[in-house]
Amino acid sequence: MTYNVAINVMPLKDLLDPQGKAVLGGLHNLGLNNVQDVRIGKRITLQVEAADEASAIQLAEQAATKLLANQVMEHFEISIL
Amino acid sequence: MTYNVAINVMPLKDLLDPQGKAVLGGLHNLGLNNVQDVRIGKRITLQVEAADEASAIQLAEQAATKLLANQVMEHFEISIL
Repeated sequence: MTYNVAINVMPLKDLLDPQGKAVLGGLHNLGLNNVQDVRIGKRITLQVEAADEASAIQLAEQAATKLLANQVMEHFEISIL
Repeated sequence: MTYNVAINVMPLKDLLDPQGKAVLGGLHNLGLNNVQDVRIGKRITLQVEAADEASAIQLAEQAATKLLANQVMEHFEISIL
């Protein structure tokens, strides 16, 4: 069966996110002063062929750990769409 | 109140996603041949100060349309975390 799986890769909470800080400044310049913090990560959607949901998630986990996420600086979450 | 809002910005379905294609090739090289398609977008989390969920979502929508998403090439989804 074909599953659509999403992987969200975000910078770890304890690390600075300079891209997020820049966007926060941009939003304040646009007048959106109620935004207090911004963090920017990646969202990757995979279409995978797998026997069941568990194997689809396992495949996405392999993709994330081997290629998509740098676990020194980022954490990831996987969900079936 | 403080709300955490996530904005997922993805390339439109009808558009090529060269970054996704490159990652697909990389995953196949790693032996993950059951991955059939990859699309790569951004995930932005905002911490916003708002009276209620509806205003938090409205603020995120403004941020997305004014700065974060290019609606010619991308679509976005907003969710409260």
